[in-house]
Order: sequence, then structure tokens, then C-alpha cells
Amino acid sequence: MYAFLSGKRIILVSRSPRRIQLLNQIKLPFEVAPGLFEEGLVSRKTPAEYACHQALQKALSVVSQYPEAFLIGADTVVVDEQGILEKPVNPADACQMLRRLRGKTHQVITGVAVVATGKTGKDVKYLVRYESTEVRMRALSEEEIQGYVRTGEPMDKAGAYAIQGVGALLVEGINGCYYNVVGLPLVLLMKMLKEMTR
Amino acid sequence: MYAFLSGKRIILVSRSPRRIQLLNQIKLPFEVAPGLFEEGLVSRKTPAEYACHQALQKALSVVSQYPEAFLIGADTVVVDEQGILEKPVNPADACQMLRRLRGKTHQVITGVAVVATGKTGKDVKYLVRYESTEVRMRALSEEEIQGYVRTGEPMDKAGAYAIQGVGALLVEGINGCYYNVVGLPLVLLMKMLKEMTR
Repeated sequence: MYAFLSGKRIILVSRSPRRIQLLNQIKLPFEVAPGLFEEGLVSRKTPAEYACHQALQKALSVVSQYPEAFLIGADTVVVDEQGILEKPVNPADACQMLRRLRGKTHQVITGVAVVATGKTGKDVKYLVRYESTEVRMRALSEEEIQGYVRTGEPMDKAGAYAIQGVGALLVEGINGCYYNVVGLPLVLLMKMLKEMTR
Repeated sequence: MYAFLSGKRIILVSRSPRRIQLLNQIKLPFEVAPGLFEEGLVSRKTPAEYACHQALQKALSVVSQYPEAFLIGADTVVVDEQGILEKPVNPADACQMLRRLRGKTHQVITGVAVVATGKTGKDVKYLVRYESTEVRMRALSEEEIQGYVRTGEPMDKAGAYAIQGVGALLVEGINGCYYNVVGLPLVLLMKMLKEMTR
């Protein structure tokens, strides 16, 4: 299935266990490199520009270590009409985020960067794209929000929920790519890898 | 989170490893019972009626063995404008199904039955509902179809693909509940269990 990659090394520049699990799911051979990039809000960008910027910076941060490889960077943000929701800083913050999202549709945007490095690791080519998925959250009761936050699951998740976990029970439905919501839009990534090998 | 169940036994009447995995995902305490019901097409029903009928028959088939419990039955069908797609009988059949689904939107419908048994296991109450999700499949090339069928994944799946596996790469997007496509709509199931305990 991955003959088009011609055996080129694929490096996922991410510490996210979800992204690692998703590439295992599609049986793509890959290695993991933790990015050397500090995450942080960049001002004056749209959420999609922000996610793309972060994704590219992650991938570029290890360029010199991986010559002749494809480096994959990704960054996922949760967005409503008020702006970007980051990871909650504590359980009270998680409750506040879920109160903000309940009973409404929000967007999940993942920026994806594929960086192809040359022989020296310096001559790079790259592609950056993003995928956006609508998520409709149920009208959660206060009891449900507190019960979910007590599971501990929201604490390291943007927007304070994990659709691939117990958080499945919070989501009425989605419109778009499910894996984008988990953290890595697999179909988009595969299109980008194919484009890079052309 | 499941205090509303008041410790009642939950029995999943299914041999599907996907359904077992999904109930584990939401940390619901449950037991598994293989249904004593033979699957088979019932004529002159809509796909939703058919899935609901199958789901209820599965759950009812073990009623006498589980007094004072909630029995869960489920049945998932893939439907396009020509009708229901079953599990493929061989790899050629799987290729044919994927050619039929590619580049178009189809429906995945899961019928769900919750049967509450009384003290004798005979006085039963039940609820039957279904969830429907739209799935947009990519315009797969012949090479992609054959590559996917060679993975072996399509053989025990209705419609010849598994969105939760390598088949993730076939699906452009969905509209509705993702877990319904995997085989058990978790939010619908939880609503039904709550309704039953009222």
C-alpha cells in the first residue's frame, strides 16, 4: 500500500500518543522524533494559520537530524466563535471549557506539515495544509460535565475532551474527518505524502 | 458516571470485538453473551427496520439466561441506493462492493435494542432505535481497492471496509455519529439506558 513512498523514512515529529496510534492503525512504517519546538500562541493569525504555523515549526525543528526523510508535524486546535481553546490548566478550567462548548457546534482544525529533507538535511521542500471538522456537542448537564472532568481525561486535551475516549459520550455527531478530531487527518496526510513523491 | 444504572448487570449480546472495545472505551461495566440468533435477511423491510429487527432478536435470544439485567443487541448495515450491502463472501466480492461505494455517499445504519428483564427473565420491557450516519467515500482507484482488499481487513465487515482500521484512508468524511459507523452508536445507547432506568 505504501509502495509510492519508495522506502523513504517517515518521521512523526510529535509526542502525542494519539498520533502514534493513528499511524500504527494505517500500518504506515514510521519513526517518532520529539519536536524541539516550544508551543505557544502566535498572535494575529486565524486559527487555521496558527495550527499550520505550529505544525510546520514542529517539523522544521528536527530537519538537521533527518536527511532524506519525510518529517510530519501536526497541531490541533479547538475553535468556537470566541476563539481558540487550549488545553485546560486545571479541572475548573476544563469545566469552564465544556460549559462553553455544550449544546453547540464548534470546529476542530489540525494543521499538517510534511517536510522533505535532502541529502544534507538542509535543502528542504515542504507542504502545509489543514483540515477542519464540525463537532456538535450535546447539551451536557452540570453533573455530566463534572463527572467527565473527574475521569481526568480532559486535562491534556485541547478543548477539554477526547472524542476517542469516554468523551465519545459528549459528541452528538461530527461533519468531516473523524481522525482530524482525534489529532491527525489521515486522508489529508496521505494525499500530502503522495504529492511529495510526485 | 454510571450511577443511574444502580448496579444493574449490563449484557452485550454480541460477538463483535469492535462493540466490546467501544463499551470498554467508555468504561461501562458489562458482560458479553453470544446471541443465540441466526442472522439472515428478512424481506420486505426498510434497512432501518431490518437492522432494528435483527438487534432486537439478538437481545431477546438470551432473555431467559439473564434475569434483572439490561441486554444490548445491535446490528449494523451499509446501505446505498441499490440496497443493503452485507459482509463480502470473497475478495472479488469485496472489490465489487468497494467499486459500488467509491466516490459517493452511503448510509451506515445501526439498530440498537435494550431489553430489560425482570425477576423471572420473562417479563421484559424493551426499546429499539437506530442511528444513521452518512459516509463519503473517496474516488478510489482500482489499484487502491485491490491493495486494500489484500490487507484482508474487508472480509468480515459489512460493506467491505472498516473505518476504524486501514479503511480510515478510504473515507473522506462522515456526517453524524462516528461510533455508529464502527458498529455501536454510544450516545444513542446511553440515552436508551437512561430512558430505561427512569
